[in-house]
Amino acid sequence: MSDSLQELRELVLRFRDERDWAQFHQPKDLVAGLQIESAELAELFLWKTPTEVDTEMQDSEFRERLADDLADVQTFLLYLAHAADIDLAQALRAKLVKNAEKYPVEKARGSSRKYDRLDGPC
Amino acid sequence: MSDSLQELRELVLRFRDERDWAQFHQPKDLVAGLQIESAELAELFLWKTPTEVDTEMQDSEFRERLADDLADVQTFLLYLAHAADIDLAQALRAKLVKNAEKYPVEKARGSSRKYDRLDGPC
Amino acid sequence: MSDSLQELRELVLRFRDERDWAQFHQPKDLVAGLQIESAELAELFLWKTPTEVDTEMQDSEFRERLADDLADVQTFLLYLAHAADIDLAQALRAKLVKNAEKYPVEKARGSSRKYDRLDGPC
Amino acid sequence: MSDSLQELRELVLRFRDERDWAQFHQPKDLVAGLQIESAELAELFLWKTPTEVDTEMQDSEFRERLADDLADVQTFLLYLAHAADIDLAQALRAKLVKNAEKYPVEKARGSSRKYDRLDGPC
Repeated sequence: MSDSLQELRELVLRFRDERDWAQFHQPKDLVAGLQIESAELAELFLWKTPTEVDTEMQDSEFRERLADDLADVQTFLLYLAHAADIDLAQALRAKLVKNAEKYPVEKARGSSRKYDRLDGPC
Repeated sequence: MSDSLQELRELVLRFRDERDWAQFHQPKDLVAGLQIESAELAELFLWKTPTEVDTEMQDSEFRERLADDLADVQTFLLYLAHAADIDLAQALRAKLVKNAEKYPVEKARGSSRKYDRLDGPC
Repeated sequence: MSDSLQELRELVLRFRDERDWAQFHQPKDLVAGLQIESAELAELFLWKTPTEVDTEMQDSEFRERLADDLADVQTFLLYLAHAADIDLAQALRAKLVKNAEKYPVEKARGSSRKYDRLDGPC
Repeated sequence: MSDSLQELRELVLRFRDERDWAQFHQPKDLVAGLQIESAELAELFLWKTPTEVDTEMQDSEFRERLADDLADVQTFLLYLAHAADIDLAQALRAKLVKNAEKYPVEKARGSSRKYDRLDGPC
């Protein structure tokens, strides 16, 4: 089956329209929804050590909850991009070009510093 | 250009690997990153009335920042799905099936209630 | 009863220690917990119009959930300040001084602009 | 100096009123602000290992940023509690009583499980 963002967007919009939910989809609420779903993702990992995370990652029940929460974030992202009439794939490609300038390979290699600290002594 | 999640994932992984950043990509940090980027999205809308949001949505500088932040969320989502070896498109389709059961059209139509309150008097 | 942050901190620390939970209270997890509780707060308001929010604010069940979620955020904030050995009240006073410089009354009055845009034409 | 929540609330309200900002303080925006400040806290820890966090915790520049961000979260929490006419200290005490029922010492001791899983095999 297709994994095109355009087709996934049509799926979630159809789901929304069958329920007449467009009326609720103000951008600010969609952003709030995105944050709420991101926090549900985070809750799956709360208090867990790296070893416990590794174990959970092999657990089918955990994996299903994780997949569900990832899907919820993707859904809100598609709704929001639609509300703003922004092409997510194009936005991602454009942002990668900018990030490549902010994080040039020679400076950023192996460093987790934020771009405005790449040269710093820190 | 392609908007396949698989291809977009390859783009961001290549970006990551050129910088040797896989070492930092623990799931918990990727989730934290996703939340941080979601909050940057939210900051674009903070304090703004619906009318002001409408105006911003026509403003090219605002739209560029919005597109950038949406792209950042999508990027972290792709990293996280990759780290968990989860197919985002498949997860989204599976979640839609579950949501259709939680929110049957006849009950959910025109209502913003959460599924566990669909029958309630509110 | 006292509303001193110091005394509230002692209450939550006692609660924690009775359960031997200090071992889980790494700063990164406390921050994640803070974000999760903040998102639960946000969920109370999701999809609601200003009028609906006003109505909810009079509803005793809603108010109880709101009070509970505010308390959870305060609790995590106290845990985190404790873990970092930071005095919240002192930090707040110091930050107000900085904010007064970033947002001088004559420039910030009646404006919701971020400090780095106070002079800008928007 | 006092660390009473009531007095700290008066400080931030005075700061707000001198700038005529009450008009922007809708509950939903205050919640969004709280989430944004929580994410700024999280950004201080992003990508950092436990060892790196320990080192940062000794660093005065890091500590100042941390104190500032904790203060921002506390400020939004005070604004929000004020907007909802909720007494934070009382809410925290009431929530502790509920939590003591959800997490009885004998069951919760040394466990990071969520209350609805305290008996589970997991």
